[in-house]
Amino acid sequence: MSVTADHVRHVFQRYCELVTAGDFDGVALLYAEDATVEDPIGSEPHRGRAAIREFYRASAGAVRLELEGGVRTAGREGAAAMIAHPKVDASVRVETLDVMTFGDDGLITSMRAYWSPDTIYRD
Amino acid sequence: MSVTADHVRHVFQRYCELVTAGDFDGVALLYAEDATVEDPIGSEPHRGRAAIREFYRASAGAVRLELEGGVRTAGREGAAAMIAHPKVDASVRVETLDVMTFGDDGLITSMRAYWSPDTIYRD
Repeated sequence: MSVTADHVRHVFQRYCELVTAGDFDGVALLYAEDATVEDPIGSEPHRGRAAIREFYRASAGAVRLELEGGVRTAGREGAAAMIAHPKVDASVRVETLDVMTFGDDGLITSMRAYWSPDTIYRD
Repeated sequence: MSVTADHVRHVFQRYCELVTAGDFDGVALLYAEDATVEDPIGSEPHRGRAAIREFYRASAGAVRLELEGGVRTAGREGAAAMIAHPKVDASVRVETLDVMTFGDDGLITSMRAYWSPDTIYRD
């Protein structure tokens, strides 16, 4: 399978849906077995699908995550700005941005999330 | 000098203004002497401020570049979705997204631009 721009766009969209739904098993299955997740940038990366699943088990479902604009695709890499709205407080907006790399099989091999206390806003 | 979120946001904004103005000297001065620029992702990186200056000399001024949303900051890293409108054809929209790293002195140490033929749209 070659990694197409449509595939990359689809994975970003599906990622947002699964995180919002709290479906951490579904999110983990988007990742390759040996993938890494650094979320946020600067934190210790989670390595391997099992660790990644535990990370999302603890975090998925707490926010409504949506793409802010179009997904940028370039070969096996993709990036997109996103907004995360904590479900417990709709007035809070976390501006984040994920960059992902993909393997030949279309699974995510790495993800890094650009957000910090400086990108959290209250409407 | 510590790299603050405000500094990173300012550099992204200034970068867009200088690229739009065609001020390749100004753009080059945002970069560290040994910086790298990979634009677009997958192309051979330009290494060092002199090579970076030549790259922008050939390209800056051809587009009106603007931030699409807020700049995401995380320590010494930043990322932002951008839209580039070629000045020769306002109906074309290139959706790009730059990620940058910064040194202690606040200069950009690396930039990677996420765009490809798949992120060029005609209104």
